[in-house]
Amino acid sequence: MDGLDIDELVGRAREGQPRAVARLISLVEDESPHLRAVAAALNPLTGNARVLGLTGPPGVGKSTSTSMLVSAFREQDLRVGVLAIDPSSPFSGGALLGDRIRMHDHTTDPAVFIRSMATRGQLGGLAAATPQAVRVLDAAGCDVVLIETVGVGQSEVDIVALADTTVVLLAPGMGDGIQAAKAGILEVADLFVVNKADRDGADQTVRDLKHMISLGRRELGASWRQPIVRTVATAGEGVADLTAALDEHREWLASHGELAARRARRAEREIEAIAVAALRSRLGVGQDALARLAKRVAAGELDPYAAADQLTAGHDGP
Amino acid sequence: MDGLDIDELVGRAREGQPRAVARLISLVEDESPHLRAVAAALNPLTGNARVLGLTGPPGVGKSTSTSMLVSAFREQDLRVGVLAIDPSSPFSGGALLGDRIRMHDHTTDPAVFIRSMATRGQLGGLAAATPQAVRVLDAAGCDVVLIETVGVGQSEVDIVALADTTVVLLAPGMGDGIQAAKAGILEVADLFVVNKADRDGADQTVRDLKHMISLGRRELGASWRQPIVRTVATAGEGVADLTAALDEHREWLASHGELAARRARRAEREIEAIAVAALRSRLGVGQDALARLAKRVAAGELDPYAAADQLTAGHDGP
Repeated sequence: MDGLDIDELVGRAREGQPRAVARLISLVEDESPHLRAVAAALNPLTGNARVLGLTGPPGVGKSTSTSMLVSAFREQDLRVGVLAIDPSSPFSGGALLGDRIRMHDHTTDPAVFIRSMATRGQLGGLAAATPQAVRVLDAAGCDVVLIETVGVGQSEVDIVALADTTVVLLAPGMGDGIQAAKAGILEVADLFVVNKADRDGADQTVRDLKHMISLGRRELGASWRQPIVRTVATAGEGVADLTAALDEHREWLASHGELAARRARRAEREIEAIAVAALRSRLGVGQDALARLAKRVAAGELDPYAAADQLTAGHDGP
Repeated sequence: MDGLDIDELVGRAREGQPRAVARLISLVEDESPHLRAVAAALNPLTGNARVLGLTGPPGVGKSTSTSMLVSAFREQDLRVGVLAIDPSSPFSGGALLGDRIRMHDHTTDPAVFIRSMATRGQLGGLAAATPQAVRVLDAAGCDVVLIETVGVGQSEVDIVALADTTVVLLAPGMGDGIQAAKAGILEVADLFVVNKADRDGADQTVRDLKHMISLGRRELGASWRQPIVRTVATAGEGVADLTAALDEHREWLASHGELAARRARRAEREIEAIAVAALRSRLGVGQDALARLAKRVAAGELDPYAAADQLTAGHDGP
């Protein structure tokens, strides 16, 4: 790491050199000692990329849909960055790349940068690292950054909710309607895609969604009406409808002052995630203290709130 | 809330009065001002319950399996508490109770206490509230506490990993093998259940799991070999195999000193979650400061790390 010239690295990333982009993302992902210097160097160069989030339950065709969207943006001659959030497994020793194979159409295109980010069991870390990776791609000149998450949990939702526009994918015949609602992904959707729309049950899924949207509107009270787009991503069907809906949402964001508001909210979460991670690691400094307190709690000698008070007060004995 | 007699409430909970148990869980779930007093009162009464976690992708039959296990424990004359972690949706105004209907066999049994805990968009809150709810059920005399999570995200995994024994459910024909691996739930499994084992593809799912377990063993290096149990929960098939496997794991935990180690780890996480929540809310005190910093970050004037430093240093100006 010695002699790392961050300005030079950022310069090469801006020229579109994939290795420089990859190196910068690694620096922010691994929380290197250079992290703060990298963040400071990137900052003035950011704010131009359109950030899209894509999520939905397993098996709905998220990677195929991402690939379809990348093709559509490439036809508009836009530079595209893709961040695929892959929870990792100790069984595979890292992110499983099966789904990524569908992205191989784009891997030789120098105007498309694809990066899998593994959670390594620490979504808290990803909550801090993902927005930094978005900043790298933004500073590197990507016109569009797509964040795709494979999970349906709240933490994955939090990550994808960093986007300017969040797309929730569903597919027919998986009981998704209610399961998606459970997973809390409906509330973050700016638009819905019913993929595999050529399958039986697509009409029912659309009806279920419309019903849920109508129930939700009372509470949401916003002027944006979540559209439902039908696609068959494997065949590229519906992609024009999808990009049109994305453009429409972008215009709505801009004309309602929502883009600035969302980006400010995103920055709030980003700052908070960094601050909490810093505070957490300060707590971790006293790992012996935490372990001693935990033993006393497990033994019933101390309740966990009293233990937490002692931990944050910086002493571990009575 | 005035005049709340916590000792009296805890006493009634120990007599098995469901309303007292429910009230105590509400107090810990809603982070009431009485939270610390409740935690202190419960603490000496805890440590007796066996805590089981149940998780898996949507649609594998978790609620039916929970219900089947509750019946089995009731036949052994054990008192059972069930905590169902339901991410909530603004569309439903709360936890969706569809799956809970399957639990209705047990709702009139006074020795079974069932509680749905909604995430309300704050899994961080649940990470702190769930162990406290376990403590309530433990103190109230439950012999077994079952935690069931519907999600497959990392945060849900973290919650279910609070258990002494964690059961991961899969079902044939959902491409679960690889999806489960992605969701990182394989690593937390002490035992696997292939539910809906009467369906086509059950043998394949078992084979896939065995393969993944064999790959993982090199890294895990533990002496416990994760068993795979086949069930048809709707018909109660395989329940004896499942309870036998649970008993076997319990004996393994006890004979290897793992039970104490796990409970100490659980206490560590619990303390850390409480401490981080406390620190986070201290940051929140300066919400104006956070909003001001976020605007500057969104405008590109300040990078998020510098903003986080300013936030944790307690001042928001340069």
